[in-house]
Amino acid sequence: MKSFAVAIHGGAGVISSSIAEDRRREYLESLRAVLSCARELLEAGGSALDVVTEAVRLLEDDSKFNAGLGAVFNVEGGHELEAAIMEGASGKSGAVAGLRMVKNPIVLARMVMERSAHCFMMGEGAEGLAEEFGLERVENRYFDTPHRLEQLRLFLAKRNADCGVIDRGVIEDAGGGGGGGGEGGGTVGCVALDWDGHLAAATSTGGMTGKRVGRIGDSPIIGAGTFAKDGVCAVSATGRGEAFIQHGVAHEVAALVRYSGLSIEEAADEVVHRQLEVGDGGLIAVGCSGEITMPFNSTGMFRGAADSDGLFEVGIWAE
Amino acid sequence: MKSFAVAIHGGAGVISSSIAEDRRREYLESLRAVLSCARELLEAGGSALDVVTEAVRLLEDDSKFNAGLGAVFNVEGGHELEAAIMEGASGKSGAVAGLRMVKNPIVLARMVMERSAHCFMMGEGAEGLAEEFGLERVENRYFDTPHRLEQLRLFLAKRNADCGVIDRGVIEDAGGGGGGGGEGGGTVGCVALDWDGHLAAATSTGGMTGKRVGRIGDSPIIGAGTFAKDGVCAVSATGRGEAFIQHGVAHEVAALVRYSGLSIEEAADEVVHRQLEVGDGGLIAVGCSGEITMPFNSTGMFRGAADSDGLFEVGIWAE
Repeated sequence: MKSFAVAIHGGAGVISSSIAEDRRREYLESLRAVLSCARELLEAGGSALDVVTEAVRLLEDDSKFNAGLGAVFNVEGGHELEAAIMEGASGKSGAVAGLRMVKNPIVLARMVMERSAHCFMMGEGAEGLAEEFGLERVENRYFDTPHRLEQLRLFLAKRNADCGVIDRGVIEDAGGGGGGGGEGGGTVGCVALDWDGHLAAATSTGGMTGKRVGRIGDSPIIGAGTFAKDGVCAVSATGRGEAFIQHGVAHEVAALVRYSGLSIEEAADEVVHRQLEVGDGGLIAVGCSGEITMPFNSTGMFRGAADSDGLFEVGIWAE
Repeated sequence: MKSFAVAIHGGAGVISSSIAEDRRREYLESLRAVLSCARELLEAGGSALDVVTEAVRLLEDDSKFNAGLGAVFNVEGGHELEAAIMEGASGKSGAVAGLRMVKNPIVLARMVMERSAHCFMMGEGAEGLAEEFGLERVENRYFDTPHRLEQLRLFLAKRNADCGVIDRGVIEDAGGGGGGGGEGGGTVGCVALDWDGHLAAATSTGGMTGKRVGRIGDSPIIGAGTFAKDGVCAVSATGRGEAFIQHGVAHEVAALVRYSGLSIEEAADEVVHRQLEVGDGGLIAVGCSGEITMPFNSTGMFRGAADSDGLFEVGIWAE
């Protein structure tokens, strides 16, 4: 039984092991910095809910990952962001989708959870709530980055080559993690167990390169991309959203732990390696005793884990 | 083992047993008509997927229920509709939210499932898809009905009486079924098992009276309001969306069947009567052998069930 535990991810997908050494170092540095911050907060007695909020907020502000600044472009050259957070103690959650002007979607998700009668808000209604709550708002182009624009160019060139196919061909891009072409981190998330034994999970993403305007993925879907329940586990997923929605991945892991008596690791492996298909993505999960597991079935997943027993590790590919 | 089975619902909530005898008859007539149609389609060899689509489409066109025509008003006096459908054989699903001009949301959900690379579409992007697909579109005021307008008036009067509370006070209205004041059917849904042993589920709703613009409930959330998996069960839920999202109700029923060895009835009872709170709502579920269960913890639930053994019943309150 650990006093606290935390895991983060920055997306799963096709991550070439040939990315330049300096870029690799930059990714690992980012993961280490966020993980250090999360560990410090937990050590100081911070709540799991505050820790997952803060870790995801930091990852949103890091342009290397596909959430907040650095989010992928949709097919019209804009950004639509989504996020969710869930508190294991109360079972309360907050989720947002189709955001265009909220700098930190995870902060709005948290406020939806705590200050709204609803738990899932989309589009202009969600933006209006952000304004009421006084959250920082930005122009949609604030989220632009050159490497995401290059990914959109590659996506559009490929789609035009597959002429006649209007609404196909975007399914391979796991959170902007690679399939769309170019290189970049993906969806971000964090799960944590705090000193009081409470669990929490949070996920944020820009979706997939070239997605249609209005597409919602698994990240803001409680039970698919995000789930937390005290006494069971907290899960944040990353990958091909449609597959994660189909299997109710995050809730399925929790159900296997509760009803099949599997360990967190066994349950996560069952879902990632036997229910999902190779290439779909991965997840991070923490159990109520601080067990951490981070399986993925893609070539890589940006990730990190730390706990009160001294664990502190980050990674991209399988060991 | 039955050759086919089907169940429908028209919402759970506070349904006064003192509603006028003629109104009661009208509700039961509507339920019987839709159930007859669904049974005929199944008898004739129709697929579960086609049957749930058609049953929900009919309920959307019936102004007594809170979906399509007759949907409740949001706080700004407009309508935002949502729906989802899931096919048990393939695990594929389609969902839509924040629709303002699509006459039959369930038909768009079906087309999202079958003809889009995405499985969940919202707002203007979803409307654009409806236009591309050539679906029937209407002005938002097409959905207006006098009794829903009266419910909004009562809601706003009550909210203004609770002065200072800006974003609270709408949580008690289960799918427009009563808590908001006035009388009316709620969220609609259908689950079916066909001759080939395939399962499907569909749900459609206008949400809750006085909801904020942009609020998404559980109906379009795969795993919360809607879920189907061949060999396990198909589920459509109705009630206080936030609670159904928290518990991942539809997926939880399936998980209890798969991993705890409970019958469909036991699993549904566990979720409705022990996990949810009294008044939250109910669900309909059909198992892979044609078992039907329709538990609710509210005062009533508009519902009906039929199967190949001759079952044909409709009801509103507990027996």
